[in-house]
Amino acid sequence: MTPIDYIESRRDANFAELVEFLRIPSISTKSEHKADVERAARWVAEKLRGQFEQVEVIPSKGHPLVYAETAQIPGKPTVLFYGHYDVQPPEPLELWTSPAFEPTVRDGNVFGRGTADDKGQVHIHLAAFEALKKTEGRLPVNVKVIIEGEEEVGGESLHAFVKENRGKLNSDVLVVSDSSMLAPGVPSVTYGLRGLNYYQIELTGPAQDLHSGVFGGAVPNPLAVLSELFAKLHDKDFRVTVPKFYDDVAALSKVERNALNSLPWKLSEFKKNVGALGLCGEKGFSPVERLWCRPTLDLNGMWGGYNAEGAKTVIPSRAWAKFSTRLVPDQNPGKIAKAVEKHIRKLLPKTVACKFQVLSSGKPWVAPYTHRYFGAAHRALEKGFGKKAVFIRDGGSIPFVTDMHDTFKIPCILMGFGLPDENAHAPDEHLSLENYFGGIKAAAIFYQELART
Amino acid sequence: MTPIDYIESRRDANFAELVEFLRIPSISTKSEHKADVERAARWVAEKLRGQFEQVEVIPSKGHPLVYAETAQIPGKPTVLFYGHYDVQPPEPLELWTSPAFEPTVRDGNVFGRGTADDKGQVHIHLAAFEALKKTEGRLPVNVKVIIEGEEEVGGESLHAFVKENRGKLNSDVLVVSDSSMLAPGVPSVTYGLRGLNYYQIELTGPAQDLHSGVFGGAVPNPLAVLSELFAKLHDKDFRVTVPKFYDDVAALSKVERNALNSLPWKLSEFKKNVGALGLCGEKGFSPVERLWCRPTLDLNGMWGGYNAEGAKTVIPSRAWAKFSTRLVPDQNPGKIAKAVEKHIRKLLPKTVACKFQVLSSGKPWVAPYTHRYFGAAHRALEKGFGKKAVFIRDGGSIPFVTDMHDTFKIPCILMGFGLPDENAHAPDEHLSLENYFGGIKAAAIFYQELART
Repeated sequence: MTPIDYIESRRDANFAELVEFLRIPSISTKSEHKADVERAARWVAEKLRGQFEQVEVIPSKGHPLVYAETAQIPGKPTVLFYGHYDVQPPEPLELWTSPAFEPTVRDGNVFGRGTADDKGQVHIHLAAFEALKKTEGRLPVNVKVIIEGEEEVGGESLHAFVKENRGKLNSDVLVVSDSSMLAPGVPSVTYGLRGLNYYQIELTGPAQDLHSGVFGGAVPNPLAVLSELFAKLHDKDFRVTVPKFYDDVAALSKVERNALNSLPWKLSEFKKNVGALGLCGEKGFSPVERLWCRPTLDLNGMWGGYNAEGAKTVIPSRAWAKFSTRLVPDQNPGKIAKAVEKHIRKLLPKTVACKFQVLSSGKPWVAPYTHRYFGAAHRALEKGFGKKAVFIRDGGSIPFVTDMHDTFKIPCILMGFGLPDENAHAPDEHLSLENYFGGIKAAAIFYQELART
Repeated sequence: MTPIDYIESRRDANFAELVEFLRIPSISTKSEHKADVERAARWVAEKLRGQFEQVEVIPSKGHPLVYAETAQIPGKPTVLFYGHYDVQPPEPLELWTSPAFEPTVRDGNVFGRGTADDKGQVHIHLAAFEALKKTEGRLPVNVKVIIEGEEEVGGESLHAFVKENRGKLNSDVLVVSDSSMLAPGVPSVTYGLRGLNYYQIELTGPAQDLHSGVFGGAVPNPLAVLSELFAKLHDKDFRVTVPKFYDDVAALSKVERNALNSLPWKLSEFKKNVGALGLCGEKGFSPVERLWCRPTLDLNGMWGGYNAEGAKTVIPSRAWAKFSTRLVPDQNPGKIAKAVEKHIRKLLPKTVACKFQVLSSGKPWVAPYTHRYFGAAHRALEKGFGKKAVFIRDGGSIPFVTDMHDTFKIPCILMGFGLPDENAHAPDEHLSLENYFGGIKAAAIFYQELART
């Protein structure tokens, strides 16, 4: 039996296993789910035990890391596969068609938190490893696996682990499946990611909430000040107004710009997925460039004052916002964070106090996609899916990729099996079953292809 | 025994009764407290039964009204006393030193939701009525009492009741205690109030929450649009930018402007109560004018996106704000609401959908304070407190006052026993015990003084 035949024969068994994995609410951002996060780590380790000689659940300051490696085959390249078993919070719960942690199949997709980001994609590789091991007795290359539980909260423990275990993790190539294909039926290798700084700001005006009748008109309202602040962070052309924000942005080559703008990316499809009355974005750039190659500043949450039923005539004492900057090569996250804070403090009036925090920080990344390992990924996707594959970039952030790239100077290959409309981080997150089952085949072929490079 | 002696002898009994009243969580804005609101109405009716020949609890579409009247004494003026037994929500609960519905005495004040606004002040009159009745056998003037349960939610039922019961409510003078003294030791008669329009706005961008990595930079963010909107509603001089907003604002006479700015109102005291790093307000007006005589636009609440622990890289589908305009004579609330909506719709980009609601609406009011009934109130306050009394305006809104003024064309006298720093609508709301006990005496004397006018 070939690995592909084995994969075909295990459709139901693989899917049942995926559902089991998805049911664990491994929400890393919420402390009350700590035990669930640990349960997900143990679940992953258990699955790896059949195929890997060495499997460890490694405790950390935060959530545990799962590490595995095969016995050494001399002369074969060493691949490091990375994924994460933690997920985003499911809120707002009322907008889910079926519960976030009760995986449900509808219209050729499996719905549930973590289906696309990233448990579904991790399980694609787990199933591929099993197929290779069961049919050929061993994996065709040396494989190391690291699955973390803090991707959605900044990945600090993994970062520390990489620093302290350079020898252990040393590899020839990194493989990650935590991104999306360009479109249904267009398997894609991703060679660029944006970086991410995530910030929180708290403004304090009056020492306590005040009656707007008694005090309105003569005291600073921190919520109004916060609104004014965010209004000033973009100009009319949708450019970020932070001084020096664009200084280090590397220009796209004409070749790459043409290639990206010639991809089978459909604006009409994108518009449909967004579902807004219109689009917007930085002047002078196409939507694909805005999404993948331009830095942004996004307001992710804002709150203050009264937000329940009816009316409350209050001037709030405090107001909060969470926001983030997506970064592109060659922006430096530390430098950007400083510039953002400096600009904000300069814009704020002296009537309010400001607490400014950087909650997490990750570098942007771009790779030379002409490397032979990228070619192996491209061939594997075309064989696994029976479709033409493309090279793309992605607007999201995977801090570990940058970390690994900086630490080991190795090629990082992103084979994403999600789709842009799959609601990662939103209600009704889902994964295409075609991509899930096709992905298992492509992943198995990819490890075989690597053995031939 | 004189009414004043009686009041002295009943200090502890009156206070115990007040505590009983305050313990009922009569939060009109929250549907789950409907039964508590009704219990408060019955409590008030029960207290009135000893002094009034006729007492009714009148059901309405919302919360019940309590009505009472004495038997007719020919030749004496008829006073209508108005108050409300409903209270604001207590949130945020964690900022209360003692629980909101467990009245607690500290430093000469009683703390609890409703102490100042308005149950404490209603009880001042209930205790005065009792003293007059017990010592003199009857109240010195004809008294009608109307206590509503919807003041904090727009007072619609009372508005409808007034329209349908003009004959029943017809009176010579309206008395209300639902405002503040200028400062401790400065008993005050209020002759002007601001009106209030309360609005809610909902903006929708994308059809659902989106991942800011995948979509950030190319889609409209309703939270950012909402921020920009509110930033545009004030200019650099803190003036509201809505066209025609100030068109109908009546200018203050030089005499009144001088009188108001000569009051023993202390900026240092106000600053201390606000506790902010600085103050702000409309250019060209003193703080007292800004608070009492100028219209404002106040952001009362705003929310959207992620606001829990940690980070969530989301572009929210929707964003909300609650805001209000305080209005002054001769602004028309309906005209202002239309102007505000028109301006907002004009400012918003076409990329977002907007739902605009007016949750409640009330007119501004100002009275000629030279009328003889105002003189009676002034004398009563000076006698009851043994201090010099003043005439002031107030920045808050009491829709019923405007209603009564428009319907019956009678003088409306506002004798407030609160203080500006008593946190009405905020945590740790309280009432000065000196003002509570002094208020009972002043109220009793006021009804006697009215009998002599």
